[in-house]
Amino acid sequence: MSSIDHTHDPALTSWVESANAPDTDFPVQNLPFGRFRVEDDPEWRIGVAIGDQVLDLRGAGLINHSDMNRLIRLKPETRRELRAQISAGLATGSAQAGRWERHLHAQSAVEPGLPCEIRDYTDFYIGIHHATAVGKLFRPDNPLLPNYEWVPIGYHGRASTLQVSGRDFHRPKGQVKAADAAAPVLGPSQRLDLELELGFVIGRPNAMGHAIPLAEAEDHLFGVTLFNDWSARDLQAWEYQPLGPFLSKNFASTLSAWMVTLDALAPFRTALRRPAGHPDPLPYLDTEANRRSGAMDIDLDVLLQTRAMRDAGVPPEVISRSNAAEAAFWTPAQLVAHHTVNGCALSAGDLFGSGTLSGPLREQAGSLLEMTEGGKRAITLANGETRSFLQDGDRIQLRGRCARDGFRSIGFGDCSATVLPAL
Amino acid sequence: MSSIDHTHDPALTSWVESANAPDTDFPVQNLPFGRFRVEDDPEWRIGVAIGDQVLDLRGAGLINHSDMNRLIRLKPETRRELRAQISAGLATGSAQAGRWERHLHAQSAVEPGLPCEIRDYTDFYIGIHHATAVGKLFRPDNPLLPNYEWVPIGYHGRASTLQVSGRDFHRPKGQVKAADAAAPVLGPSQRLDLELELGFVIGRPNAMGHAIPLAEAEDHLFGVTLFNDWSARDLQAWEYQPLGPFLSKNFASTLSAWMVTLDALAPFRTALRRPAGHPDPLPYLDTEANRRSGAMDIDLDVLLQTRAMRDAGVPPEVISRSNAAEAAFWTPAQLVAHHTVNGCALSAGDLFGSGTLSGPLREQAGSLLEMTEGGKRAITLANGETRSFLQDGDRIQLRGRCARDGFRSIGFGDCSATVLPAL
Repeated sequence: MSSIDHTHDPALTSWVESANAPDTDFPVQNLPFGRFRVEDDPEWRIGVAIGDQVLDLRGAGLINHSDMNRLIRLKPETRRELRAQISAGLATGSAQAGRWERHLHAQSAVEPGLPCEIRDYTDFYIGIHHATAVGKLFRPDNPLLPNYEWVPIGYHGRASTLQVSGRDFHRPKGQVKAADAAAPVLGPSQRLDLELELGFVIGRPNAMGHAIPLAEAEDHLFGVTLFNDWSARDLQAWEYQPLGPFLSKNFASTLSAWMVTLDALAPFRTALRRPAGHPDPLPYLDTEANRRSGAMDIDLDVLLQTRAMRDAGVPPEVISRSNAAEAAFWTPAQLVAHHTVNGCALSAGDLFGSGTLSGPLREQAGSLLEMTEGGKRAITLANGETRSFLQDGDRIQLRGRCARDGFRSIGFGDCSATVLPAL
Repeated sequence: MSSIDHTHDPALTSWVESANAPDTDFPVQNLPFGRFRVEDDPEWRIGVAIGDQVLDLRGAGLINHSDMNRLIRLKPETRRELRAQISAGLATGSAQAGRWERHLHAQSAVEPGLPCEIRDYTDFYIGIHHATAVGKLFRPDNPLLPNYEWVPIGYHGRASTLQVSGRDFHRPKGQVKAADAAAPVLGPSQRLDLELELGFVIGRPNAMGHAIPLAEAEDHLFGVTLFNDWSARDLQAWEYQPLGPFLSKNFASTLSAWMVTLDALAPFRTALRRPAGHPDPLPYLDTEANRRSGAMDIDLDVLLQTRAMRDAGVPPEVISRSNAAEAAFWTPAQLVAHHTVNGCALSAGDLFGSGTLSGPLREQAGSLLEMTEGGKRAITLANGETRSFLQDGDRIQLRGRCARDGFRSIGFGDCSATVLPAL
């Protein structure tokens, strides 16, 4: 497990001035990892975000390769040593300042990539308020299935269409069938939705056949991102039985560019805020440490900017606010332990989506499906526009932020993309 | 589309004598691609199987790299040129015989690898008799869901636990819940099963957002393998609602080592033998060519060898015989067109599992679940042993074979693995 150390000292400041702005996502207490390219060099580099800059780790002499999927395999103690080195070198008064300065690039001037090469991608379903609300729409009489309180429900997704924040995508087409129609038709989705999720990136792999015990699970987790699992609800309703969602989900998903490490998140660990009335987990999913601090206290926002708002210079509008520790029924470590209990082999660069992290209230919903009760109650924006589902030109942004008295707040950077018309 | 040419001439023989044996899977008319390693060299090589030998393509000067995921991206016409070159060089009387002979390795002396690096893996459900039989067990009143006759049902699987034939695996553990129990328990699966499938390997990718029309779909398919999608039925029954199978499937899957190319399969293309009473597919899944010859006439066998049989020197026993064209409700090209109709990007090295290819009769079932009617009617082997589901030490082998009057028969090689005890 990560613990709080001098890298979290709220008094620390950086010689990179923008890292000292109160509202930056990337103060020197954060130090998230990502990949970027600069003009005239096609190679991806490994960087750490600091204020509005990114530090080229290889350029600064901190690592001797550019392979993020190798870096994230580091043992936890080695990873923490690297973090301590970066923290010390970026701190005000550091002797490295002069030498490292020329390895800083403005984030606005570089091209961000996916934070690592994503191997297998699994999407979980840990948002119990989401599962209950969606269950009501699909199965009014049976919203939360009996396995939900025992099994961290998950399913496999598609890695090839994961994109980094800022890459737009086309509205998907697919088969949809009206309830009263005899046959389905092929057409653009009319019920395109977002899903507010976190992404958990696996660092250290396990050998096939060998389960990872819950107590060791966080040693295999490298970092956390924002994640938008775009969903076509009309395609989903028609295709998902009996084997689960497929084309309704695999046309695009958006990942933020920066992996906030479990080390950076150490001050913001907390207990899950599970609703009452559920049994204790089976022993392989239960430790005292996991109960006490297995969850992550991350505030999450969903923002929408329509084309009309963009044209009028109106900034994105918050349409939902949630919190990961309140929304989640399972912790990231429980997901690792469950995913491997059958011997499944995880790889460096696997991505776990959390599932939609909705709070219990409508204004805390992580999807339009929930906010609009299946499209029946459109939301009204400040400019008078309404939305049941996403329209072409809509841009969705996710934000994440950790705050705790006595600690410097950290954030997750941008996770946004715009819906382009169907091709 | 591939067509029949001189490489399929049944009169062709090879200077590699074992390729002329009547029962070989790999006569000179086949020429399937795979990867292998030889002792003292850790690098994977690209080979073509011929009789009981494998030809090292780079050694023979036919290609200048060892990257199968690059080779399978070849344009169809370039791929066919390469096939014609290999065919001519291996044919009796070829001028290459002397030079190529030292680039032959006995298959028994090399280590086979997965035929390419598998990127995303999708499992389909095209076996209509399987879907009906399994549907009866899970939903007696509603075996075949209304979407089945319209949608090529599929879901994403896990690539990291795909193994090449010959690699054994441990029985998975997982949560199971007895119907009359208040809570699930964690334990080794008691209902471990096989699934007789074909694997379709994607060669040429498509750009994200751009659907592949059915008429071009086969240009994106490189080859076909045997595929065993091991399944833990007790884990599956408890976990699969509402998002589909997960830990019940992702502990291990076994792929044969050789990709039989669509070019080699050209003489064995046929119409689907769909049961009557289903509607025509939607236009994006329907062409005249696909109706006429979209399916593959591949005879399939499942063989079981228990530990007791192995100890007594008894060979594997056939427990089921099926045929892909009779079992399948959708063609491989329809799977490509459907998978991309929403803009999903396919990659070189993606694997599509067909789903279990059962015939309509019990002795044609591609899984024990069907053969034993959910475990209620055990099968009896020739030595008197019975099986409801697989026991530790059981070895399952899949075989595939194409035969047609006027053509040389070809086969798929071995696809086998043994169940090891749970760890």
